Amino acid sequence: MVTMRANVFRDKGRFGIEEVPRPMAGVGEAVIRITLTTICGTDLHIVRGEYPVKSGLVIGHEPVGVIAELGAGVEGFAVGDRVLVGAITPCGQCAACLSGHWAQCGHGGGYEAVGGWRFGNTIDGAQAEYLRVPHAQANLARIPDDVSDEQVVLLADIASTGISGAESAPVRIGDAVVVFAQGPIGLCATAGARLMGAALVIGVDGDDARLAAAQRMGADVVLDHRATDVVAEVKRCTGGGADVAIEALGTQQTFESALRCVRAGGTVSSLGVYSGKLALPYDAFAAGLGDHRIVTTLCPGGKERMRRLIALVRSGRFDPLPLLTHRFALADIGEAYALFGERRDGVLKVAVTP
Amino acid sequence: MVTMRANVFRDKGRFGIEEVPRPMAGVGEAVIRITLTTICGTDLHIVRGEYPVKSGLVIGHEPVGVIAELGAGVEGFAVGDRVLVGAITPCGQCAACLSGHWAQCGHGGGYEAVGGWRFGNTIDGAQAEYLRVPHAQANLARIPDDVSDEQVVLLADIASTGISGAESAPVRIGDAVVVFAQGPIGLCATAGARLMGAALVIGVDGDDARLAAAQRMGADVVLDHRATDVVAEVKRCTGGGADVAIEALGTQQTFESALRCVRAGGTVSSLGVYSGKLALPYDAFAAGLGDHRIVTTLCPGGKERMRRLIALVRSGRFDPLPLLTHRFALADIGEAYALFGERRDGVLKVAVTP
Amino acid sequence: MVTMRANVFRDKGRFGIEEVPRPMAGVGEAVIRITLTTICGTDLHIVRGEYPVKSGLVIGHEPVGVIAELGAGVEGFAVGDRVLVGAITPCGQCAACLSGHWAQCGHGGGYEAVGGWRFGNTIDGAQAEYLRVPHAQANLARIPDDVSDEQVVLLADIASTGISGAESAPVRIGDAVVVFAQGPIGLCATAGARLMGAALVIGVDGDDARLAAAQRMGADVVLDHRATDVVAEVKRCTGGGADVAIEALGTQQTFESALRCVRAGGTVSSLGVYSGKLALPYDAFAAGLGDHRIVTTLCPGGKERMRRLIALVRSGRFDPLPLLTHRFALADIGEAYALFGERRDGVLKVAVTP
Amino acid sequence: MVTMRANVFRDKGRFGIEEVPRPMAGVGEAVIRITLTTICGTDLHIVRGEYPVKSGLVIGHEPVGVIAELGAGVEGFAVGDRVLVGAITPCGQCAACLSGHWAQCGHGGGYEAVGGWRFGNTIDGAQAEYLRVPHAQANLARIPDDVSDEQVVLLADIASTGISGAESAPVRIGDAVVVFAQGPIGLCATAGARLMGAALVIGVDGDDARLAAAQRMGADVVLDHRATDVVAEVKRCTGGGADVAIEALGTQQTFESALRCVRAGGTVSSLGVYSGKLALPYDAFAAGLGDHRIVTTLCPGGKERMRRLIALVRSGRFDPLPLLTHRFALADIGEAYALFGERRDGVLKVAVTP
Repeated sequence: MVTMRANVFRDKGRFGIEEVPRPMAGVGEAVIRITLTTICGTDLHIVRGEYPVKSGLVIGHEPVGVIAELGAGVEGFAVGDRVLVGAITPCGQCAACLSGHWAQCGHGGGYEAVGGWRFGNTIDGAQAEYLRVPHAQANLARIPDDVSDEQVVLLADIASTGISGAESAPVRIGDAVVVFAQGPIGLCATAGARLMGAALVIGVDGDDARLAAAQRMGADVVLDHRATDVVAEVKRCTGGGADVAIEALGTQQTFESALRCVRAGGTVSSLGVYSGKLALPYDAFAAGLGDHRIVTTLCPGGKERMRRLIALVRSGRFDPLPLLTHRFALADIGEAYALFGERRDGVLKVAVTP
Repeated sequence: MVTMRANVFRDKGRFGIEEVPRPMAGVGEAVIRITLTTICGTDLHIVRGEYPVKSGLVIGHEPVGVIAELGAGVEGFAVGDRVLVGAITPCGQCAACLSGHWAQCGHGGGYEAVGGWRFGNTIDGAQAEYLRVPHAQANLARIPDDVSDEQVVLLADIASTGISGAESAPVRIGDAVVVFAQGPIGLCATAGARLMGAALVIGVDGDDARLAAAQRMGADVVLDHRATDVVAEVKRCTGGGADVAIEALGTQQTFESALRCVRAGGTVSSLGVYSGKLALPYDAFAAGLGDHRIVTTLCPGGKERMRRLIALVRSGRFDPLPLLTHRFALADIGEAYALFGERRDGVLKVAVTP
Repeated sequence: MVTMRANVFRDKGRFGIEEVPRPMAGVGEAVIRITLTTICGTDLHIVRGEYPVKSGLVIGHEPVGVIAELGAGVEGFAVGDRVLVGAITPCGQCAACLSGHWAQCGHGGGYEAVGGWRFGNTIDGAQAEYLRVPHAQANLARIPDDVSDEQVVLLADIASTGISGAESAPVRIGDAVVVFAQGPIGLCATAGARLMGAALVIGVDGDDARLAAAQRMGADVVLDHRATDVVAEVKRCTGGGADVAIEALGTQQTFESALRCVRAGGTVSSLGVYSGKLALPYDAFAAGLGDHRIVTTLCPGGKERMRRLIALVRSGRFDPLPLLTHRFALADIGEAYALFGERRDGVLKVAVTP
Repeated sequence: MVTMRANVFRDKGRFGIEEVPRPMAGVGEAVIRITLTTICGTDLHIVRGEYPVKSGLVIGHEPVGVIAELGAGVEGFAVGDRVLVGAITPCGQCAACLSGHWAQCGHGGGYEAVGGWRFGNTIDGAQAEYLRVPHAQANLARIPDDVSDEQVVLLADIASTGISGAESAPVRIGDAVVVFAQGPIGLCATAGARLMGAALVIGVDGDDARLAAAQRMGADVVLDHRATDVVAEVKRCTGGGADVAIEALGTQQTFESALRCVRAGGTVSSLGVYSGKLALPYDAFAAGLGDHRIVTTLCPGGKERMRRLIALVRSGRFDPLPLLTHRFALADIGEAYALFGERRDGVLKVAVTP
């Protein structure tokens, strides 16, 4: 049996590099040799036992690599092609995908909530030397020669997610947009709001480094929630309320503030992962009469999404490199999780190389 | 001073017919002589002191009448024209109106939450012999001769609101739609879902008469929440979840059930008026990752909306007459409130004639 | 070699039943035994040599059948399942499909104009005993037991196309819609406009039988273009112009009239197949300043589209049976083409049984 | 009688400064003292007799000024306020406005094609010392103190029009967009495509100065149609066709090229003013089967549109100043027309000060 090294989850707090069988490509699948990957906030939830996955799973869902094997039925690609694969891998052929809800992919059948997220969740993931890609025809996105692995690795999840926060609203030309939380996803949402033509982008956080990063990613104004009544200040500087509020953390406080910040007829675009009960204050919600909209979006995936995001990077519209603050070898992934989990040294995202 | 009779709110539980000054038309306004009006669930909240309005206000917001006076600047209408006026009277000229958020009208300025609702809320209303109509140019909708007052009076509020529940989703051809609560608004939402091409419309209530009415208004299936696990049954008969759930009551239970009934990527279209804290169960919400949308809609108004609804009635697409179950003279409005408030005799809506 | 009988195109005017190899299912494919099919106007263009296909091709693209063989990688179906397959068979996995443009499917790669139409165009079609279905996972739609073959066979193309004319506009509640040409597709467009809540549906044709059929399919008004100045009459009865005009023939005259019928800001939804140069009269087009929209739609396909259309039939919202006016055995398909091509005996669509 | 100086059209080729009555504000109107205006390509058509207006009309439709008088019923403004007024002045209260088609304003009644364009077309315009503004409540947009007249004057028409070319498509994040003609409107369309997140913006023209300007306004690539097969080159560098083509000239050639440049499922967003017959080549149009969309847009107006555009200028997202290449006094407007009409000295737009 051919083996490979991979980051395997065993139990709450127990994970690390193990020697595991190297995957093989079935019908419609591909195997890629990973050349770069990263760690996501969701991975922290997994290793802390806050999000359940089965013991023995290889985790990670942000893969850049080179095609090592192509299964039957995959056409138009060749072994050796450099590819990016999105964190979400839609089949393209189920009721959800054929309705345009690719992230809620039912794998050929109907809908499955969050079903498009498979890597490091329901099948082995990307923090490994090799990765089996399901529905490869729909999910392998070729990387042009003039774009580096580091330039695209963050597109697989956080950039696709963050930018979708602006798209799902959608942000319109001339809008005032406030983005709650300036972690990696929030920073990409800030960039996304600007990319779509917002006239005013307000970034909110309580961390100086992240507020500074928000300004670099496109925020016109940053608000420190430790020092400012954010809702009042947003209302003041927007003349009554933002057109769109993007929530990028997943807490009651940020969700509620987002709702309070938007004008009547405004939209809360929610990206956060919530736990516990979420309250919708009826006053902020105008008792249900304010023509408000609340939209949630799971990271858009698939090869065409990745192609579009790569195009943005290639033409200089969007630069994810400043978010990649630290670099590790796969062998040192434990150290990478520690740094990332403790938010040490101003870390935003880490590059992990097998 | 010329006077008229009108239903005046004085205090919690105190209201009734009084002799008050007859209104006059200012610039851009009209006065109509009311020929038919009705009582809304919101009026019950007002007279019970649950929704605050100032003492001395004439209440009611569903007016059919004849133009009695036209203020300066109103063109294309004549004294004597029969007109319907929506419950919501947008100015058409503020930031909200010019952004397409007519119900959140700011009266020439910016946005004002629920600002489009003025009759019987912030200005004198329609349970009277005469009514002053603000922004008359935008709000007088001529009634064709072949359409009766009774056929159009329910378009002013409940039909416009109910149908908007389907439009805001929007319901698409072939959708499965569940409508929670089959009161007057829910019944119109049921009709609206069918009007827009839903393949399956499920009506939910706990009252036999209303379930029977739901079938007459277009529900394919009705579910009695007293006897059925509604969420389970909706999931069963839709093969996994409705595309759209319309909430037409305004309670935690119906809102939460609505959310639990929709598939991943589905939409909750909320029409209810909520009080207290509304909880969004994170499990029903797929932790924020289910690509769900929650949209709220306040009754669309304005003369063009009314014209479109009248056209539906005229061509037989939508028949609101079955909802008009009882008739009263304005002088007997106290009795009408009692019957309507106690839901006696299978009442759905009452016609009130000055 | 196992063979089957099929309708093979040889040359302009030369086609008919031949014994040909029976297809086999490759990876991701299925073979179905056809139980019912029909003839489309496009097939007439093919046999007349007006639309080029290669000699030896089996024609026809509207298949109902039973699964006879499943290729590797197709899951959730079993041999013996009754299925409907759309005329358009998207792969679900190319750039076009992953952008929601399923009819312009590029088969795994990018976009290909009209690429979703393969049956009887670029691969063997449905006027045969057996049919190979590409991208089967995305294209086999199970038929419930309580729905007959005849009830669904017209959903594969004409109903999907016709209804899409209303959806692409989109028709909104209360709209006035005019549909040019009341052949099978126009009749379904008429039904579609009504299904989506148009308050006024006007059907236009020059054939008495088709005008009568239009009334049965949902037209409120029918106009005979031989006797009426259609544009003037539409403007009169809509008070200035239709909101939407659907073109379902593909001629300069119908296209131009459609454009002249819509109000400023209105939409022409075009379904016809044009040949030669199409002129856009600048006056009808308000010199480009009228906020007009012209949208074209190729028949939507895929299993989810078929499932939705079947749901409409099942709940009685849409009944295609009146369009199926004649029945033939596959052996007599020459006779069927003659009748259909000459529009004899009030034919609308013919059922063909292998 | 109080008089003022204004540029009056008399007949083909005959126009110039005359002493005319100074306007007064009726109900719902305002009079502004013009502080800056400009000349539009449409004005050239008028003075050349190519677009008919009545003799004696004051022309021009791009006004910046100070409120001099307010008619009855206009609230929230004061004499002395600095304001921008859009070229299109919707009433906000007709069927068209209440349907969101503000540019096709019917002035209180129904729809009127191009009815929103009144200044210098159906009522006296802005090349004058004073201007009467109809429907003032909907059309006066206050200018913040930190924004100059020159920064906003081009927002009234060309920026609003050009940017709307991208909005109406709409351009989506990652799109490839080609803009035909890089005159003032095309340059704003180029900026608009970039503002909305296009990954690749291609500017096409045949004038070196305009191609250079296109690069400054945001084009990634410029193509000179004198030297390049534009359609082939666009297809090559987009990998098969642009997502959106914006037409900003109004000729058969640019319109046809735009259509040929887009991929299946793509959109032609047309801004040009056409004359004569416009042909829609059926091959470029995929015989009507390519899921193409053609949308036309007349300059969006109204105070909220102007407010949003001013916000873009204020935050530095969009800078129209480079388009203002020459400055004239109102007294010298004949000279300004000559320079502008002959496209001398690299003129793009001229500032005219009363």
